[in-house]
Amino acid sequence: MNDPLMNIVILAAGQGKRMHSALPKVLQPLAGRALLAHVIATARSLAPQRLCIVYGHGGDAVRSALDAPDLAWALQEPQLGTGHAVQQALPHLGDDSPTAGSTLVLYGDVPLTSAATLRNLLHASGDGVGLLTAELADPTGYGRIVRDAAGAVQAIVEQKDATPTQRAIREINTGIMVLPTQQLAGWLGRLSNDNAQGEYYLTDLVALAVADGVPVRTATVSDAWETAGVNSKVQLAELERVVQRRIAERLMEQGVRLADPARIDVRGELVCGRDVFIDVNCVFEGEVSIDEAAEIGPNCVLKNARIGAGARLAAFSHIENAIVGPDNVIGPFARLRPGTELGADVHVGNFVELKNARVAAHSKANHLAYVGDAVIGSRVNIGAGTITCNYDGANKHLTTIEDDAFIGSDTQLVAPVTVGRGATLGAGTTLTRDAPPDALTVSRARQTTIPGWQRPTKKPKKD
Amino acid sequence: MNDPLMNIVILAAGQGKRMHSALPKVLQPLAGRALLAHVIATARSLAPQRLCIVYGHGGDAVRSALDAPDLAWALQEPQLGTGHAVQQALPHLGDDSPTAGSTLVLYGDVPLTSAATLRNLLHASGDGVGLLTAELADPTGYGRIVRDAAGAVQAIVEQKDATPTQRAIREINTGIMVLPTQQLAGWLGRLSNDNAQGEYYLTDLVALAVADGVPVRTATVSDAWETAGVNSKVQLAELERVVQRRIAERLMEQGVRLADPARIDVRGELVCGRDVFIDVNCVFEGEVSIDEAAEIGPNCVLKNARIGAGARLAAFSHIENAIVGPDNVIGPFARLRPGTELGADVHVGNFVELKNARVAAHSKANHLAYVGDAVIGSRVNIGAGTITCNYDGANKHLTTIEDDAFIGSDTQLVAPVTVGRGATLGAGTTLTRDAPPDALTVSRARQTTIPGWQRPTKKPKKD
Amino acid sequence: MNDPLMNIVILAAGQGKRMHSALPKVLQPLAGRALLAHVIATARSLAPQRLCIVYGHGGDAVRSALDAPDLAWALQEPQLGTGHAVQQALPHLGDDSPTAGSTLVLYGDVPLTSAATLRNLLHASGDGVGLLTAELADPTGYGRIVRDAAGAVQAIVEQKDATPTQRAIREINTGIMVLPTQQLAGWLGRLSNDNAQGEYYLTDLVALAVADGVPVRTATVSDAWETAGVNSKVQLAELERVVQRRIAERLMEQGVRLADPARIDVRGELVCGRDVFIDVNCVFEGEVSIDEAAEIGPNCVLKNARIGAGARLAAFSHIENAIVGPDNVIGPFARLRPGTELGADVHVGNFVELKNARVAAHSKANHLAYVGDAVIGSRVNIGAGTITCNYDGANKHLTTIEDDAFIGSDTQLVAPVTVGRGATLGAGTTLTRDAPPDALTVSRARQTTIPGWQRPTKKPKKD
Repeated sequence: MNDPLMNIVILAAGQGKRMHSALPKVLQPLAGRALLAHVIATARSLAPQRLCIVYGHGGDAVRSALDAPDLAWALQEPQLGTGHAVQQALPHLGDDSPTAGSTLVLYGDVPLTSAATLRNLLHASGDGVGLLTAELADPTGYGRIVRDAAGAVQAIVEQKDATPTQRAIREINTGIMVLPTQQLAGWLGRLSNDNAQGEYYLTDLVALAVADGVPVRTATVSDAWETAGVNSKVQLAELERVVQRRIAERLMEQGVRLADPARIDVRGELVCGRDVFIDVNCVFEGEVSIDEAAEIGPNCVLKNARIGAGARLAAFSHIENAIVGPDNVIGPFARLRPGTELGADVHVGNFVELKNARVAAHSKANHLAYVGDAVIGSRVNIGAGTITCNYDGANKHLTTIEDDAFIGSDTQLVAPVTVGRGATLGAGTTLTRDAPPDALTVSRARQTTIPGWQRPTKKPKKD
Repeated sequence: MNDPLMNIVILAAGQGKRMHSALPKVLQPLAGRALLAHVIATARSLAPQRLCIVYGHGGDAVRSALDAPDLAWALQEPQLGTGHAVQQALPHLGDDSPTAGSTLVLYGDVPLTSAATLRNLLHASGDGVGLLTAELADPTGYGRIVRDAAGAVQAIVEQKDATPTQRAIREINTGIMVLPTQQLAGWLGRLSNDNAQGEYYLTDLVALAVADGVPVRTATVSDAWETAGVNSKVQLAELERVVQRRIAERLMEQGVRLADPARIDVRGELVCGRDVFIDVNCVFEGEVSIDEAAEIGPNCVLKNARIGAGARLAAFSHIENAIVGPDNVIGPFARLRPGTELGADVHVGNFVELKNARVAAHSKANHLAYVGDAVIGSRVNIGAGTITCNYDGANKHLTTIEDDAFIGSDTQLVAPVTVGRGATLGAGTTLTRDAPPDALTVSRARQTTIPGWQRPTKKPKKD
Repeated sequence: MNDPLMNIVILAAGQGKRMHSALPKVLQPLAGRALLAHVIATARSLAPQRLCIVYGHGGDAVRSALDAPDLAWALQEPQLGTGHAVQQALPHLGDDSPTAGSTLVLYGDVPLTSAATLRNLLHASGDGVGLLTAELADPTGYGRIVRDAAGAVQAIVEQKDATPTQRAIREINTGIMVLPTQQLAGWLGRLSNDNAQGEYYLTDLVALAVADGVPVRTATVSDAWETAGVNSKVQLAELERVVQRRIAERLMEQGVRLADPARIDVRGELVCGRDVFIDVNCVFEGEVSIDEAAEIGPNCVLKNARIGAGARLAAFSHIENAIVGPDNVIGPFARLRPGTELGADVHVGNFVELKNARVAAHSKANHLAYVGDAVIGSRVNIGAGTITCNYDGANKHLTTIEDDAFIGSDTQLVAPVTVGRGATLGAGTTLTRDAPPDALTVSRARQTTIPGWQRPTKKPKKD
């Protein structure tokens, strides 16, 4: 479908008092992105001529968080209703010639309307007014869609104004509308605020359209969440679960095996190869890719990570801005911090932290270690308790460990320092100068026994 | 509402065989508290004249677990039915004068009846009998509330005695009753145990009231869980989820952002400031407070903890009887044990354990460390692998680290010992005497290389 | 019931394209076991004369994964429908005499049919044909069971062939059938593949039976999951939750207290004593037993483990092929690896890893330690940061620590080495030779202070 002239206005000025938050409502995060960012993304996918956001409450925060070259911003201050809001956008919507096309109105706190649904609505609208409606089991509180005998929309009747017959109507107005841009200015100018709230309602345009003989057409959504708005943390949590369930289903349809689709959280982009297995309660943030047949154990946390094919992350692995190589064996209780890049068949075990560390193939750090600011060769064995002393209190320094080195337990590598190829460091060594290749280097005091020594005895507790 | 003369009797003598437990049923924990403790707390909120608990099975355990000055305890032994149980409470219910007021009967294994519901019931009862009833979609098995044409309660008819018409009645008896204290002794004395179980049923008092012309009034609960009893671990788990869901909703209504309301467990009191975020799968026990804008990562466990404003607890933080300061950065994989008190902007990183440690502002212990029985100043840097040797096998000793000290990696501080202000300890130091301020202190053997040394080779395995 | 002559054929040749997996569909794991393994286990519990599996796609993998002496394997290649599949099994089903008994047809991707249901079906079938049917709220898409006025099965009518009246029938064919073995070869030979798919359908045998006057009898399942098939990862996840919910209910009925029945995963056999408590989000794999009153904290992972009575595993305990003794206190963040065996009252604390280590009663390793290939006596205290250097780069060696020894913090035990009874090792010791009993052994450089030393200062960053 081609929509040669189509604008989108996103209403995002609402305050959201019920959120009880210092953060403007439309910036509340859903699946890791602001509510409004979801709407903007959907809007962009429709390729509008102009995309205008009406902002108000917390406006600077909203604008600076999401500004982009393709966005126009219209300030609504004070906020006098949805009709008033769209009026503020008028200067950004171009001409009002007969070929001005249509304007789609979306809401910054209604994040999950699909592009397909909106395309349906635009298609149905033609050159008239378009309403996105929904069929609800319980329509109480919503504006009902009243039609004539031929099925044409006559009016939207609010709950309080509805007759018993009208109240039985289950088709309701979602608020999402398409309007002919040419008529928009005129109609908005004719809106009245003669109502309890003293506000100008966009919905009232429907009556003007009917009066002017402009056809009002509809498209209907089947899933209630597509048009669900967020006014409270409870509703935010409900939509979070909707998003997560849909992401889980999509992953499974692509062949990912999930231990429990109700216990995975994806806050960003998760791309998985075939036969990936994700165990319960994992959290993914930012951009994460997991290659074929890799396994993610229970309770792992991954943020901006790449996981190689066949890698196995045991429980409680915590990976951030890091690359796990193919066939790696990671965790449990491993933490890979930013700048970690592991080659093939690398093993990182429990209570091991890596940061800004490149580790080549077949190397191992299996127990209790801190490796930071380091370049590690192949087939290196890093013993338990090894620590790279990369920080001297002022600056960070590099540790280099060449291929086939063996680092004894509880060794401190005082950077900058290099361990040569094939070198061995004895347990407990404090390495302050480079260790030559193929030799044993050690710093060790003599072991002595003090035979007459008496163990301390328990002192009585003071009260 | 004022209830000048109102007693409460809680029946808590049931054995609970179906729990398959050595713990008496009413002591089984729900949201961290014994079932009976929930009922006592609700009862207390109604400010009764007298509060009497009828106990029996496992009685001593029950009484010693929950005894308090405001509680009277009546032993029921043997246990011959609910009527018999209330009879045991009679000596604790005061006079039987016309001004004796009313007696509310609750159940130790029905933990979630709200005080509001019970106030409704007491109000509805007036000076007559009051029944708390419920409307069930499927009333099978429950005693039906049979009313006359005017709507007055005539009888409670048990399932087995009910006519087809009566079986169609969906209003059932929950067992929770209000009885005029004056009539109680007389009516209980007239109860018969001429039934299949050979027990005296409290329900039979309704027939006596009707016969005596005492009005029987009702109040109805809408939520089935308010009167749900716990007879099995399955039912216990069901009510646990009800409690947790309600706690989650209350937190969200107060402005807390929960990643998943179905995955938070609060077993005690959780008080949160505005814009607190709690990620999936966290467990809170005892008294926990979290100040404004603090973030709790996934899978954290907090028990009796205070979290300062803006603090961020990363995944797998484990906090117990500890205070986290404002803007702290904690975890992942950090453990704060009892007696830990952190100032502002303190960082505690992965695989770090603190116990009985006061840490002043801006200090850091970011990697693999044990700090116990210690007083740490400001801007102190505790290197990876640092260990306070606080225990000599018999007694615990204090480590003091003054402001601006830098503790090199893998250092052991053999307490009692003090590191002076601005002092630096070299990596791998075993500190047995105080380190003077502003100087480098170190204990280090010379680094030597043994060039002719040969690495061990793999021995063949013995079978 | 005695089934003297009963064969079972399991159809397991399906490819399962919608699984998007390199693993054949019937090998996809459900609760830790292949789908087909569930069906085989149920089949075995019915004690059939002959148990034949028809395999095809990925056949070698299937056969080698699950082969056993009691299984016959029939290759179906190419795969021309369910009737064709059973035909391949014919040579394995023995004679076709009048006493040949019956043949039950099961499906390798329908894993949860209970033995009780199949016994009902076999009993109902007698010497005729038996159909397992189900009553569905929405039968769309399934073959309907059409009966005559007397209730006898006349035919199975597929969705596309059904009249409106037939489409209203809610009793559907599950595909699970019992067939008289004597007639099987004849009927299968009369099947036609004159249909859209060009396949031979087992269902068509029903019409042949009716034509031959062989009675067709039915048994009905009440739970839809009993006959649910797995064709996608979505369906696999759905059945995983069914299995897990049923396991959780069974555990609770036995007296186990579960914090959340929706958050426990058992992939194998979990046997629990009375009053065991399992907190949220635990995963159990292989064979795990937990003795009376033991408590498993949140997020624990246990695989092939035995947990003694009264033991407490704190959050994030990770146990694999290990034995935890009675009254042990384990975790949080403890990892017990294969070969760990703990006596009574042993404490293993945070960031401690044990592997192939026997630890006798009352010993403790509470902080940051690696103990591998070790035999530890009673009442031993292993200080924070202790590491057994069991690996010399080629071979593993044993560390022995005798009763009542005290291992100071940050000590390295270079194996093979023995610490004598009652010995004390000073903090930071590198032990390369045996430590004699009842004495203090230490290797320590002298503590010195370098007074003129200047701390490094921060260098400007290069760009």
